[in-house]
Amino acid sequence: MTLKYGIIGSGAIGGYCGGKLAKAGKDVHFLFHSDYEYVKSNGLQIDSVDGDFHLSEVNAYRSTKDMPKCDIVLVCLKSTNNGLLKEMLTPLLHKNTIVILIQNGIGLESDLQEVFPDLNLAGGLAFICASKNEPGHINHQSLGKINIGAYSCSDISILKEAIKDLNESGIDTKLVDYEEARWKKAVWNIPFNGMTVVLNTTTDKLMANPNTEKLIYEMMLEVIEAAQHAGVKNIDSSFADKTIDMTNAMPPYSPSMKLDYDYKRPMEIKYLYSRSIEEAKKNGYNMVKAAMLEKQLLFIESQYLK
Amino acid sequence: MTLKYGIIGSGAIGGYCGGKLAKAGKDVHFLFHSDYEYVKSNGLQIDSVDGDFHLSEVNAYRSTKDMPKCDIVLVCLKSTNNGLLKEMLTPLLHKNTIVILIQNGIGLESDLQEVFPDLNLAGGLAFICASKNEPGHINHQSLGKINIGAYSCSDISILKEAIKDLNESGIDTKLVDYEEARWKKAVWNIPFNGMTVVLNTTTDKLMANPNTEKLIYEMMLEVIEAAQHAGVKNIDSSFADKTIDMTNAMPPYSPSMKLDYDYKRPMEIKYLYSRSIEEAKKNGYNMVKAAMLEKQLLFIESQYLK
Repeated sequence: MTLKYGIIGSGAIGGYCGGKLAKAGKDVHFLFHSDYEYVKSNGLQIDSVDGDFHLSEVNAYRSTKDMPKCDIVLVCLKSTNNGLLKEMLTPLLHKNTIVILIQNGIGLESDLQEVFPDLNLAGGLAFICASKNEPGHINHQSLGKINIGAYSCSDISILKEAIKDLNESGIDTKLVDYEEARWKKAVWNIPFNGMTVVLNTTTDKLMANPNTEKLIYEMMLEVIEAAQHAGVKNIDSSFADKTIDMTNAMPPYSPSMKLDYDYKRPMEIKYLYSRSIEEAKKNGYNMVKAAMLEKQLLFIESQYLK
Repeated sequence: MTLKYGIIGSGAIGGYCGGKLAKAGKDVHFLFHSDYEYVKSNGLQIDSVDGDFHLSEVNAYRSTKDMPKCDIVLVCLKSTNNGLLKEMLTPLLHKNTIVILIQNGIGLESDLQEVFPDLNLAGGLAFICASKNEPGHINHQSLGKINIGAYSCSDISILKEAIKDLNESGIDTKLVDYEEARWKKAVWNIPFNGMTVVLNTTTDKLMANPNTEKLIYEMMLEVIEAAQHAGVKNIDSSFADKTIDMTNAMPPYSPSMKLDYDYKRPMEIKYLYSRSIEEAKKNGYNMVKAAMLEKQLLFIESQYLK
């Protein structure tokens, strides 16, 4: 069975994943925005720690209306653009299409399901350090892993097929429990994204100061409690210790929200904070610290986005 | 009975209070630091909404060792300098001296009592908008009120005498319950001082944004709960509403901690946050939001104070 892939949002993560799939000979169709003309003429360049490569022929599109229907759609947009998905996804969908939201946060699939009640949905958590600094040119610095959790897939065998394709293409991909995957990633995302913005700093500096290190750890415990209330069984405070160790092993890092802040772009406050807090509340848990950080971030964003 | 007053820290508040007392003919002795030479030669100028005045003869000193023993000492230093009080106060004290700490925060008197176990102590909460922009020159913009609470005064009649003097000098001064006075002021101080620093803004902007307005209100409720745990009876959520209304009636304002931050001076984190949180914890209450703000502030300060 040959799956047809659609890549929505061909930035760093979309470009990298789609590029790896295409290089491995899979049938991949990319939606580009500002890079369309450049990629049409010049192809896509991936500079990767695992080996650089160039794709001279890329199935590039400017609109999903021109794209074929796809079996697997990887949504790699910033979640601040998810309001566009209704219009963007519709032309790509057949009865069995699986849409995988490779985005950070909580509540993404549940919100999109309200728009497409019958859609097969999965969540994808990328552990890939990559950036796009020029048109059609992706830099992959480290890691290269995706955890995928089925949210509402009527036929899991197609998802498994896609996971096989991703692994064949050199992306270490696992099928994992949906809630566990989303909440585990949130254990890192919720403290570090917001705190680097509010304190205008990088992860290493937060870890070097005993006060913020303690606060970060407490915030991780709060996310872990929220995860437990969401029914995630396989998580306890030892996961915070592990996440702290992992962060200490990383080079100085600006999380994606910090980059959005630096470039005065909208921040992914809704899915990283507001919806996470909301879901926890539904499950009877009050994320006090995340809610405080959320309000600080909303203030900061309101001062540069009018 | 004529009381002898010592003013320790002749900045905006000390200069204003001491200046008003001296103008009314009270026996006032001022400790100056950087302004000593200027005031010795030029006197003290108070520009006040209630009428400007000049004191050409000022009992100015450079060290408390040269000052007479005082009946009432008004400590108007930044609490970040309270480590100096042991040495500074000793020459001023006789058996019945009352030291009034006109400073913001929780735990100030209790900490100083450990240094001077027999000292008569009171807390003073100033509601005075004043600043000192040049040597020997105080600007008093609005309000002019002090609430004083006895912390450990063996003879309250001397304190009442001082309050009479202050009122005669045109400073609206009341004797109030100590814990109530300190905690009620904290209801404003704890949210606004830290939040204007962390979000690098002014009070009006925090109030204009519905997210920070809500957070500020929630933080006020947290301080009110801490106050209730400290035994303050005369306080409930209506005090938060009143404090919000008061803030909305104020012009755009940078609290003292924001000015300290702007001028890269040490911030009064210890008494506004750390000791407040500690006292609340002793009383069985966890100030989660204040503790988060405390850690953010400690991080910010560590980035500019080495």
